[in-house]
Amino acid sequence: MRRVIKVSASGEYDVIIDKGILDETGEILKKIKAPCKALIVTDSVVAPLYLERVKKSFENTGYEVLEFVFESGEKSKNISTLSSLLEYAAENRMNSSDLFVALGGGVTGDLTGFASAVYLRGTDFVQIPTTLLAMVDSSVGGKTAIDLKAGKNLAGAFYQPIAVICDYTALDTLKEETIAEGMAEVIKYGVIFDKELFDSVKDGNVKDIIDSIIYRCIELKRSVVEIDEHDNGERQLLNFGHTIGHAIEKCSGFSISHGNSVAIGMMIAAKASFALGFSSEDCAPEIKEALINNRLPVSASFSAEELYEVTLCDKKRRGKTINLIVPEKIGKCFRKEQSTDRILEFIKCGI
Amino acid sequence: MRRVIKVSASGEYDVIIDKGILDETGEILKKIKAPCKALIVTDSVVAPLYLERVKKSFENTGYEVLEFVFESGEKSKNISTLSSLLEYAAENRMNSSDLFVALGGGVTGDLTGFASAVYLRGTDFVQIPTTLLAMVDSSVGGKTAIDLKAGKNLAGAFYQPIAVICDYTALDTLKEETIAEGMAEVIKYGVIFDKELFDSVKDGNVKDIIDSIIYRCIELKRSVVEIDEHDNGERQLLNFGHTIGHAIEKCSGFSISHGNSVAIGMMIAAKASFALGFSSEDCAPEIKEALINNRLPVSASFSAEELYEVTLCDKKRRGKTINLIVPEKIGKCFRKEQSTDRILEFIKCGI
Repeated sequence: MRRVIKVSASGEYDVIIDKGILDETGEILKKIKAPCKALIVTDSVVAPLYLERVKKSFENTGYEVLEFVFESGEKSKNISTLSSLLEYAAENRMNSSDLFVALGGGVTGDLTGFASAVYLRGTDFVQIPTTLLAMVDSSVGGKTAIDLKAGKNLAGAFYQPIAVICDYTALDTLKEETIAEGMAEVIKYGVIFDKELFDSVKDGNVKDIIDSIIYRCIELKRSVVEIDEHDNGERQLLNFGHTIGHAIEKCSGFSISHGNSVAIGMMIAAKASFALGFSSEDCAPEIKEALINNRLPVSASFSAEELYEVTLCDKKRRGKTINLIVPEKIGKCFRKEQSTDRILEFIKCGI
Repeated sequence: MRRVIKVSASGEYDVIIDKGILDETGEILKKIKAPCKALIVTDSVVAPLYLERVKKSFENTGYEVLEFVFESGEKSKNISTLSSLLEYAAENRMNSSDLFVALGGGVTGDLTGFASAVYLRGTDFVQIPTTLLAMVDSSVGGKTAIDLKAGKNLAGAFYQPIAVICDYTALDTLKEETIAEGMAEVIKYGVIFDKELFDSVKDGNVKDIIDSIIYRCIELKRSVVEIDEHDNGERQLLNFGHTIGHAIEKCSGFSISHGNSVAIGMMIAAKASFALGFSSEDCAPEIKEALINNRLPVSASFSAEELYEVTLCDKKRRGKTINLIVPEKIGKCFRKEQSTDRILEFIKCGI
C-alpha cells in the first residue's frame, strides 16, 4: 500500500513509502520536476545493488543521468568527497535547474544534500534512502552535513529535498547489524515521543511491521520539523542519545557505527538522568531490554574523561552550556541545559 | 557624518558608513551581539594594515579574538582555504553563538560569509569591507561563495551578515588600480539604475564624493536585495557585465582582476546589445568614456570562442538558456534570455 506523508517546512514535499518503487523513481519525480540532468550519488556498497534500477527508471522517463560513486562509510563524509562531487557536477555543467539524487544511507543523504545546498547556491535534490536509519530519520527534515576533523556534522546546511522516495524492500539486502542501527533511531523515537511505538519494537520482532514503523517515525519527524525546522527548540529532542553518541563514534575512529553509538548514548543518558534526579522514573532497564532485543550494544569501553573531551566540540554546545536530552518516562523526553563543566559528572554517572 | 542603511532580507541588519570606525567595530557590534569568540578572517595584504586596530577594538569590548590570515588573492577563494578555515574554527571550539568577522575585500567577504553559513549549519558573521568593490557591492546582500576549478562562485550560500561596518578611510591605503576595480561596480550601478550616479563618476574625479557614492550604491543594492534576495529576478540585473566578465577572469587565470573583467564584460555586453538590436540606444561610447576616465580597461585579447566555452559553465545558465543583462539606456537595463547556442554570436558582436 502506498503511503504518503506531506512535509511543510521551508520547502514542501512528499515522503512516499511503498515497496518496489525504486523502479518508479523517474516516473514519480517527473510529476514534480521536468526531465533534466540527474546526478545520482551513491556509495560503493549501494551502487552494485540499486544504481542500475534507479538509473534505468530515470533514463526511461527522459532524464540525462550522471553517476558519482564514492567509497562507502562515514570516513567519506568529509570535505574532500564534497569537493570531488561539486567539481564533478561543475565539470559536467550541471546548472541550478538540474537535480542531485541521494541513493543510499545517511552518509549519502547528508553529503549529497549538502552538495546540492551549496552547488550554485542551491540546486534541487531528492532522497532515496536504502537503509532503515535513513528511512526513519536522516532522509526527512533537511539536515545535511559533512564531518570535520574535530567532529561529526560540523559543516552543513538546512536544506529540504524536493521528495523522499522510500522503498522498504531495499531493506531486504541489508545485513542484520545495519537493520539494528536503524532500530536504534526507532527506539529513540519511541522513548522521546511514543510509548506505543516503543512497546511494539521492544521484543525485537519488527520484520513484519517494518513499513508501519517507518511510517510512524516519519510522521513523528515531520511534526517536529514543521514546528522547529532550524533546531532551536523542539527538534533538539531528536538528539536524545546523540550528544554522547557522537562522542563515542568519534572516540572509536568511527569503527562503532552511528546507530550503535546512539544506542550506547541513550543508555548513558538514561542512567545518568535518573542517577542525578533529572528523571523521576528509571527508564534505563526498559531501554536496555529493547536495545539488547534489537541486537544493539549498551556500553562501550571509553572513559568518562575521553568522552567528555570530545563532547566539548559538539555543535549543540552554545557558549558554556549544552542542552542534554533526558527522558521523563518512556514516550516523553525534555531538554535539560547543563553547564559544560557538569557534563563530565553526567557522563560518569551514566557509564 | 555617520550614515546607516537598514537592509531587510531574510536577516535584518544595518550597513554603517563612516570614517574611522575600524576602531569602533567592537563597540558597534556589542550593541547587537554579546561578547563571544570572534574569529577575524583577513588576507596577507589587509592583516598588516588593519588587523591590529580591529582586534584591539574587539578585545577592548570583551570579545575573545581568534585570527585566520590567508594569502591574498582570488586564487585563495577555494575549497582548500574554506576547509582550513572551518577546521580552524572547530579546533578552537567555536560554537554556533560565536562570530565570524570578514575584514577585507570581496574574496575575504565571500569566503568568510560562506564559512559562517555552513559552520554548524549557520553562525553569525559581520562584514568589514576594506576595498571599494566590497563596500559598494559584495559586502551587502548575502551572496557568499567560493570558486570551483570549473568557474567562479560555483559553490556558496545566500547568507546575510548581522552588520556591515564600512570605514571608507580604509580606501586611503588602496592602490589606484584597486580603487578602479571598485569603480567598475559603481559604473555598473549607474548603467543599471541611476543615470545621475553614472554622470557623477563619468569624469573619474571621485575622491571627494566617495562616501556619497558608496552610500548611493548600497541604497541601490539594498532595494534590489529586498525585492529578490535569492536572485530569481530583479537581482540578476546586477550581473550586467558579469557573465562575460567571469569568463574573462577565468580565461586569464585570474590575472585580470574581477573589476577589470567586469569593465570589459560591460563593454562587450553594451556593444553586442546594440549591434543585435536589443538596445535601442548605443550606450557603448559613454560607458567606454567612463571606464577609461576611471582607469579601467575596455577590451581583452581572448577570442569569442575561448570566452564562449567558459561562459557555458556560468552558474546563471538554466538548462539551455542564459539570462544576459543588457542596457536599454544609461540608467536602465533589462534581462534578455538567450539560448546558449546564440551566446557565441553575442560575444562575437561585442569584442
